[in-house]
Order: sequence, then structure tokens, then C-alpha cells
Amino acid sequence: MNAEPRTGSNLLEQAVQAFSQLPGIGKKTALRLVLHLLKQEPAQVEFFAESIRKMRQEIKFCRRCNNVSDGDVCSICSNSMRKQELICVVESIRDVIAIESTSQYNGTYHVLGGVISPLDGIGPDQLQIEGLLDRIQKEGVEEIIFALNPTIQGDTTIYYIQKKITADPAKPIRITTIARGIAFGGELEYADEMTLARSLQNRLPVEKYVTK
Amino acid sequence: MNAEPRTGSNLLEQAVQAFSQLPGIGKKTALRLVLHLLKQEPAQVEFFAESIRKMRQEIKFCRRCNNVSDGDVCSICSNSMRKQELICVVESIRDVIAIESTSQYNGTYHVLGGVISPLDGIGPDQLQIEGLLDRIQKEGVEEIIFALNPTIQGDTTIYYIQKKITADPAKPIRITTIARGIAFGGELEYADEMTLARSLQNRLPVEKYVTK
Repeated sequence: MNAEPRTGSNLLEQAVQAFSQLPGIGKKTALRLVLHLLKQEPAQVEFFAESIRKMRQEIKFCRRCNNVSDGDVCSICSNSMRKQELICVVESIRDVIAIESTSQYNGTYHVLGGVISPLDGIGPDQLQIEGLLDRIQKEGVEEIIFALNPTIQGDTTIYYIQKKITADPAKPIRITTIARGIAFGGELEYADEMTLARSLQNRLPVEKYVTK
Repeated sequence: MNAEPRTGSNLLEQAVQAFSQLPGIGKKTALRLVLHLLKQEPAQVEFFAESIRKMRQEIKFCRRCNNVSDGDVCSICSNSMRKQELICVVESIRDVIAIESTSQYNGTYHVLGGVISPLDGIGPDQLQIEGLLDRIQKEGVEEIIFALNPTIQGDTTIYYIQKKITADPAKPIRITTIARGIAFGGELEYADEMTLARSLQNRLPVEKYVTK
């Protein structure tokens, strides 16, 4: 069902072509989106196109944490209400957004831009690890929270960075990682052994479990 | 799962907002698309935005058949290889594209822009029926093929236009409608009674059925 739609207009086909370059958008969906835009006011479509163009042209990456930013430093790093001595280390911007949407975290982030994965040719030098070590060196960091995906690559990355940090015993820093366990709404029966084993190991007193 | 994603960048959030205005695109998908564009070359994103902007600003509707067009007359109407005395009447541009993608039709179209639907406040005057009657009056039309959706509104529209056309007996025109029946790959068991009844009524000799 991926046949090229034929219309009387090249302009329309070019727009369909442009949309179908996006991930998960086929020709049919692209056509549906373009026909939707065709029904909108020109000013509204102008706004749509402009916000995408502007986003790509003007967006920056925070020079402190590598998060997306409108200026040199992102709004999280420059927010004095947030605990600047707390750093949550994540793989990508997507993870920042996921954690931010919980509204439960009030520290800063550090976006690595990936995890160490020799098979994919990604070593420590390709990641923003230097910047993180720099921050630890220069800022009064109290705690590093690793919020990486629970894969071998994620664990390797935690291990590597942790080694680098603890190399300097003069500055004791608390190093933690987010809890692994059975998800809310998850069934024990379907959990993998690793998760179940870890969630038994790291069991909590019931009074801590009760949600506020 | 439709929470507003929070990031360090308003530019990013505006682009996500823009995408999530599109039909069938939620916040999560919008974010995925924007993060994809963020990874592309600026020139490529510029091209994406520009082709959408240009499409909406510059696209026209063919003054003969109301199809989308780059100029005053669409490429189908101005194609002398197509049978200009054959008009296929459709509801929307989408239907033109569907029929064009079969590569089996070599005539012209007439896009009504909808069907008569008193409940939705759409009468004959809101549709491009006048233009169609004009074409029949002025051009040497041989056949009108109705390719409207098989709804009460579609049938009403066919009936209405047919009445208008046959009002002038001096110019006999062949008026047809596309065949209704069991779709290829469709199961008799699941077909609705109406379709099954019509496909029995309009049964074909087997020799006509054999596909070339």
C-alpha cells in the first residue's frame, strides 16, 4: 500500500514526500496530513512550518548539561529553584523529558548522548563524560543519580564513570542509580528473572512502600 | 499519556505543539518526530518546512475540475493524452488520488467537494455542481461516471445531478456509476446484505470476470 499517490499538483506531492521521510509515517499517512494542512488557513500552516524551521535553526545544546536549550545554558541549569548540586545522568533528551514529566525530580541533568557500546563503535570519548567529570571537579556536586536504561551497555557506562569519579577520594560524592523492580501494574508472573531477583534483593520495609 | 513534555527549550516545545495539532499525532509521537528532525541536517529540515509552506501558499484548485493544481488548470485537465470527454465525478481530492493509483482510468475528473447532506447543512449550492453542469453544457461530454461513496448522501447526490443532466434531452450523455460488489479478497459471509444483494443483481458473465 505504499504506491506513490498521483495528483494534479507537484507541490502537493513534494509535501507528501517530505512528510513520508519522517519515521513511522508512510505515504498514506503523509497524504492525510498534507490534505489536513491544505484545509487549514495559510497563516496557520506558515506558523507550523516556521516553528519547525526555527526549532532546527536556533536550538542549542546547553554547554553545561547538553540538554536542548534556547540559549547557552538550558532553563533547568539556570533555574535557581532547582538543586544544582544534584546531577541525574541520562542517555538522551528523551529521558530528561520522561523524568521531568514525573514532576518528582528537582535537580539538574547531564545528557551523555548515548552509552558505552563497543559493538556500535561508541567509546567513552564519543560521549559527554569529560563534561560530567569537569562539573564534578568544579561544582560542589553532592549526588550523582544514574538513570540509564538497564542494559549491559548502561551498566558498563555506570561502572566506567563511577571508577573515574571515585578516583578522587578527597571529594566523597554519593553515587546512586534509580530503583529496578516490578513496575506498578506489572504482573510478577511475566517479570523477567533478573528484575524479580533484583527486586527481592532490594526489598523495602512496607511502611516505605505506602504511596503518599 | 498525553502530558505536556517538559524540556529545557521552548523552541522544541513549540515544534512539538505544532506537530501535535495534526490529526492522529499525539504528544508522544510529535516529540519523536521533532527529535528525529533535530538529528537531521538543518538544510534538510529547512527543505521539509519549505515544501509544506510552499504547498499551502502556492497550491491552486483547477478552475475546470477543482482538483489540486500548480497552475490554473491541473495536469490531468491539460493532458491531451487523456480523454477529455469522459468525466469521473468524485467527492474529494483523496478519491482522485485513489483512482489515479489504479492506473486504469484515462479520463478527467470533477471534484464536488462533498456530497449533498442536509443534516450537515450541505446543499447542492455548497458543492461544485454548477461547474459540472457548465462543463456538460459547453464541452462535448460523452460519459459521466459517478464514483461517490455508497452512502445515502452519495446516492442522493447522484440522483440530484442526474436529474439536472437529463433535463436536456437534446444532448444524450451516458451516465454510469462504479460497480458495487464483493471486494477482491472479501468473504461472502462478512459482506453486508445490501452489497451482497446488489452484487447478485448486477452479476456478470464469467468470461467478463476473468482478469486480464
